Amino acid sequence: MALESWNEGTAKSAIVDFVARVTKEGGPGYVRPAERVAVFDNDGTLWCEQPIQVQIFFLIDRAKELAAKDPSLKERPAFRALLEKDFGALLANGKRGAMELVAATHAGMSEEEFGTIARSWFASARHPKFAHLFTQCTYEPQVELLRYLRDNGFKTYIVSGGGVDLMRAFAEDAYGIPPEQVIGSSMKLRFEIKDGRPLLLKLSELGSFDDREVKVENIGLHIGRRPILAFGNSDGDLAMMRYTMGGAGPRLALLLHHDDAEREVAYDRDFALSPLAEALDKASEYGITTVSMKRDWKTVFSPAELELKKALIDE
Amino acid sequence: MALESWNEGTAKSAIVDFVARVTKEGGPGYVRPAERVAVFDNDGTLWCEQPIQVQIFFLIDRAKELAAKDPSLKERPAFRALLEKDFGALLANGKRGAMELVAATHAGMSEEEFGTIARSWFASARHPKFAHLFTQCTYEPQVELLRYLRDNGFKTYIVSGGGVDLMRAFAEDAYGIPPEQVIGSSMKLRFEIKDGRPLLLKLSELGSFDDREVKVENIGLHIGRRPILAFGNSDGDLAMMRYTMGGAGPRLALLLHHDDAEREVAYDRDFALSPLAEALDKASEYGITTVSMKRDWKTVFSPAELELKKALIDE
Repeated sequence: MALESWNEGTAKSAIVDFVARVTKEGGPGYVRPAERVAVFDNDGTLWCEQPIQVQIFFLIDRAKELAAKDPSLKERPAFRALLEKDFGALLANGKRGAMELVAATHAGMSEEEFGTIARSWFASARHPKFAHLFTQCTYEPQVELLRYLRDNGFKTYIVSGGGVDLMRAFAEDAYGIPPEQVIGSSMKLRFEIKDGRPLLLKLSELGSFDDREVKVENIGLHIGRRPILAFGNSDGDLAMMRYTMGGAGPRLALLLHHDDAEREVAYDRDFALSPLAEALDKASEYGITTVSMKRDWKTVFSPAELELKKALIDE
Repeated sequence: MALESWNEGTAKSAIVDFVARVTKEGGPGYVRPAERVAVFDNDGTLWCEQPIQVQIFFLIDRAKELAAKDPSLKERPAFRALLEKDFGALLANGKRGAMELVAATHAGMSEEEFGTIARSWFASARHPKFAHLFTQCTYEPQVELLRYLRDNGFKTYIVSGGGVDLMRAFAEDAYGIPPEQVIGSSMKLRFEIKDGRPLLLKLSELGSFDDREVKVENIGLHIGRRPILAFGNSDGDLAMMRYTMGGAGPRLALLLHHDDAEREVAYDRDFALSPLAEALDKASEYGITTVSMKRDWKTVFSPAELELKKALIDE
């Protein structure tokens, strides 16, 4: 059965009714499959971003490796915060500060070398507070929703502030979303022939910081169509939701509200790296459907919900 | 029958053998469908770029409209060359000069407004020398090849120096390639709320000039996988062909040589906007298979070949 981890209610009805409408051939809301573009934020929308985004844990491990080779890195405040797991300092630097660490720890290797490092990290890296792999921190209702949309002819995309190469290393297995449908923040690349082998070198210069308005601009660049469905969980997703709602015909924008302190974490306005305030206040004005984790999701994580719950409420 | 417009010979065999190899499950060259990425240049590879790229004809018509509103544009040399169809002056400006004209004539409207203008132009614009629509100037063997690859589980992409929005307006109908699989030169976009409506405004600032090394860098950004097949026709495609050949496992790079003065135009080194010299000289060193239009293609255009032939050899 589709969407079995969703409780009956306004949010599930909005999704099911929307999909029925756009897929009904000959109906007034019909949208041909090629135009059924659905965009999803990743951190906090498709998987858990607490106590801090998964990417930060990856950065910590990368920073350790790099500092072992170059001890002077430990003197740089952002690196030191990372190595000491000083999340307060990291949060204070904001999302862009985190992206600069991404640039510094991902550069100087080929795209493919990075992919190998990332896949190998995901194969064994576990959340520090419990025994599960990070790739098991995905939200079960969202994995079902992505599958449900694809079964109904949608093309599903990630449009996230996270580093694109790290997401591409796990999104296909975790969500069924192939690399070419992952849009994220990116460092510039340079084509080089190295020892006779043509490759793409990752540079430390930021190419695109895929947040807020830039998410929409990257949708234009990469997809070239206005999505008909958008799902986010923070103010960083508001532009993308408004852009989605701004087209003709049926439209659906969904906003996940983390209001479930028992099964996950209750947070919104105060999460410094990715706050939710304006989008929550303006949801109804902009026609955005709010999804309450507490009310609308029968299950949050699967199969590891209980252990996650324990870990997260201890945080 | 697949590839019916291709003559039997080295090129067709290379394609058929390659596809057989990568699709043979359990075979040593097997590539899973998700990794069967094929990239094609557009101008001169998928459709005719003589006497000058189709985009230039679009620019001429756009420049006329703009000059009617703002006569001072006629004083700018690049605009004047365009309005007077002075192809010599346009060619002397090179491909980047042409891209600057693209920027100037495409900006100041939303992506969707541009799409409407472009689709309406393609619906009626005809080659000045003969009676056919530009969209009928595609090469029949290439349309068959794209279909053949997709029938064998490939994802087909355009990676072209042409303006991405113009290509997206016709590539789906002409080649079966949807907008999100078209990578091209692009102007920057800006998200705006205009009269209450969220939209993407096309700016006149160049975002990416998708030629030579940049083609590979954009493949990394947009696709995130190394292609296993590349098809080009100029030195602008050489980096992409080398990148394709540089990965592990079966690889195929194809170079179309325009050597058919009778059915199309014979040109290579001297075509200023997009010369073919180094790629031709180094093809065998780099493992690139040269496709001779004269020898390898049974049909060039369809169904309008005879009229095209007449028009082009008169040029």
